Amino acid sequence: MMQVWDHLWNNVHLATMDTDAGDIRDAAIAVHAGKIAWLGKESDLPKGWQASQVTDGQGHWITPGLTDCHTHLVYGGNRSHEFEARLNGVSYEAIAQQGGGIRFTVSATREASEEALLAEAIPRLRSLLKEGVTTVEIKSGYGLDIASERKILRVARRLGEIFPVRVVTTFLGAHALPLEYHGRADAYIRHVCDEMLPALAEEGLVDAVDAFCENIGFSYAQTEQVFIAAQKLGLPVKLHAEQLSDQDGAALTARYQGLSADHLEYLSQKGIVAMAASGTVAVLLPGAFYYLRETKLPPVQALRDAGVPMALATDCNPGTSPMTSLLLTMNMGCTLFRMTPLECLQGVTVHAARALGLRQTTGMLRVGMDADMARWAITRPADLSYYIGGNFLSERIFQGKSATVS
Amino acid sequence: MMQVWDHLWNNVHLATMDTDAGDIRDAAIAVHAGKIAWLGKESDLPKGWQASQVTDGQGHWITPGLTDCHTHLVYGGNRSHEFEARLNGVSYEAIAQQGGGIRFTVSATREASEEALLAEAIPRLRSLLKEGVTTVEIKSGYGLDIASERKILRVARRLGEIFPVRVVTTFLGAHALPLEYHGRADAYIRHVCDEMLPALAEEGLVDAVDAFCENIGFSYAQTEQVFIAAQKLGLPVKLHAEQLSDQDGAALTARYQGLSADHLEYLSQKGIVAMAASGTVAVLLPGAFYYLRETKLPPVQALRDAGVPMALATDCNPGTSPMTSLLLTMNMGCTLFRMTPLECLQGVTVHAARALGLRQTTGMLRVGMDADMARWAITRPADLSYYIGGNFLSERIFQGKSATVS
Ligand SMILES: [Zn+2]
Ligand SMILES: [Zn+2]
Repeated sequence: MMQVWDHLWNNVHLATMDTDAGDIRDAAIAVHAGKIAWLGKESDLPKGWQASQVTDGQGHWITPGLTDCHTHLVYGGNRSHEFEARLNGVSYEAIAQQGGGIRFTVSATREASEEALLAEAIPRLRSLLKEGVTTVEIKSGYGLDIASERKILRVARRLGEIFPVRVVTTFLGAHALPLEYHGRADAYIRHVCDEMLPALAEEGLVDAVDAFCENIGFSYAQTEQVFIAAQKLGLPVKLHAEQLSDQDGAALTARYQGLSADHLEYLSQKGIVAMAASGTVAVLLPGAFYYLRETKLPPVQALRDAGVPMALATDCNPGTSPMTSLLLTMNMGCTLFRMTPLECLQGVTVHAARALGLRQTTGMLRVGMDADMARWAITRPADLSYYIGGNFLSERIFQGKSATVS
Repeated sequence: MMQVWDHLWNNVHLATMDTDAGDIRDAAIAVHAGKIAWLGKESDLPKGWQASQVTDGQGHWITPGLTDCHTHLVYGGNRSHEFEARLNGVSYEAIAQQGGGIRFTVSATREASEEALLAEAIPRLRSLLKEGVTTVEIKSGYGLDIASERKILRVARRLGEIFPVRVVTTFLGAHALPLEYHGRADAYIRHVCDEMLPALAEEGLVDAVDAFCENIGFSYAQTEQVFIAAQKLGLPVKLHAEQLSDQDGAALTARYQGLSADHLEYLSQKGIVAMAASGTVAVLLPGAFYYLRETKLPPVQALRDAGVPMALATDCNPGTSPMTSLLLTMNMGCTLFRMTPLECLQGVTVHAARALGLRQTTGMLRVGMDADMARWAITRPADLSYYIGGNFLSERIFQGKSATVS
């Protein structure tokens, strides 16, 4: 039977991220109607294949399009003035007393118009797309009231309409306690669970639900209330867990079949076992580790031993990781966390997609999946993790269409 | 008198890096015949000024074009396979026994044709230029024989002809001992001093002379031989000093009025005092510090106290810093070395230019200097150090001409 495709790339090597297929050298890959229609050795192309368009891949490597599965990239203002003040010797306490820290970002985000927030977010998103990102998760959590959380999530959705990228939204109302609820954290959580989340979910703005379970965030019990509210709405959960201390948050997340537990520097063996059992992805965030000059490493070897899938993400946010490079994140995964280049590439493709509930959709080169791909002028996949601050992307392909962003 | 200029940018803010002028908001800057002809408050523009071209700077900031004052960016091959092997548990010793490490790079560089070396170097240089670099230093040192060292330096010169960038070359024959001189380091140094350097200098390929003074490199006495040879030829010197141990290399460099001493993690107070007296720049290389996971920090506070100018550079090289982002280097200067954002910006402009003997030419916005500038869509200069992996360059200007590289 004659094969007719929309587009075929030949003279490429494929890093499929499909453990059955592995790397395929001297390959070709065809897409049709936005999906991967065929891939394999170029010499195995079926007789009589036809494609409306053929691209000579110039001997480059094609990987799945990258997925940044943990970002807060929609926010108002930046915090470079605090960064500068800190380096000039001003204490955290003094900055906090002057309304700094997350309070500054919440104020700036609340005050910004939807258009202004969008305009601020665009260069950050563009940075990611330039490096081959085709899926990005964006969290709310700097609004902390219903109108402001809605504004953030609407901007996230609009980014996905303006740019050729898949945007997955996460409601993070339980990110921090807003000033107006000072001393009334339980009341705020009730507001989050009973009013904010149901309303925003009803509006179609919420793909998943997250919380910050920490001494300086919300308690285990409060986090569970958020998970119960999400479950009622049929929404998957994830958690900022074990970043600064062990709150048993990862095990809680696993108990709710969470998509991912993120950060995990203080993750216990108990949490690892629970995550392995529930298939919860460990999302590691070396940018925040770097920026905060943490010394406590996440338990990478134990996660590896337990078979917990590890993803990597930028954690793009103004306070603890003002980072918009997923390639640099991969290098940090190697350099700081001692992950292998293969683990880092899996961490921004197949495992990152899984952390967003998209394992059947993107993150792998396999027939039937969305044709989200990145082509790179590199000699081997490990180059992507090895170089620091370089970008060897030659083409970005989103749902079968060439969509390079410069 | 009527002012007539080639080009004027208005509606900009200027981070002049000139301590007399400081930052100038709501400014304009004019260039003529490749030089800065006027700068100041836009409201202070002289009556009747004329310019052949006027650019609305859109409220952006203009800094001096950036200078990367320490790179090894011309080399053959990369070492991602070693990076990957290390992370998969192979020891340094095993890699070295298999001909890895610098020996691998020397072999690959010797084997590569001049055209191949050029082609490999171009994407690295382009990465730097995309971030507003207008001056780059490039060292030899992976050839270690006269033909191969010549090949590297010729490629460096050609990069400066092909691209709108000022390339400064450094002869680093005393980088490592080539295999064919095994056990005969003094003989190799004589060859460097008596044959290689004079010949390459005669060909106009050498702007400065460098060496690697270290237990695993060359001794203090051998380094001094190289400096004496450079002095005879009227060439300025610099040194890879005190990276892994204190060899008193910085003081030696100061004694020869060296332009810079670079790395400096193990720099002593004696070295600092000597550098301050001779005006030798401290070139700090946080990329190598990061990549090697060093814990011993260079003595930033003591350098600051002594008034030693500090520069920052990528150290772009395949073994210990495969980095091609000077903006990321600035963030690392802050995050890892606790330098202030202002120090980091001085470190890639005015002080970096000084480290190359170009303090009268580039690195500062001042009338009469070359009009090398970078325009940025940022709200304050500290943003350049604060963001990680972002790039907010809106225009690169080299010797008065708009020359943005994408
Ligand atoms: Zn986060
Ligand atoms: Zn070096």
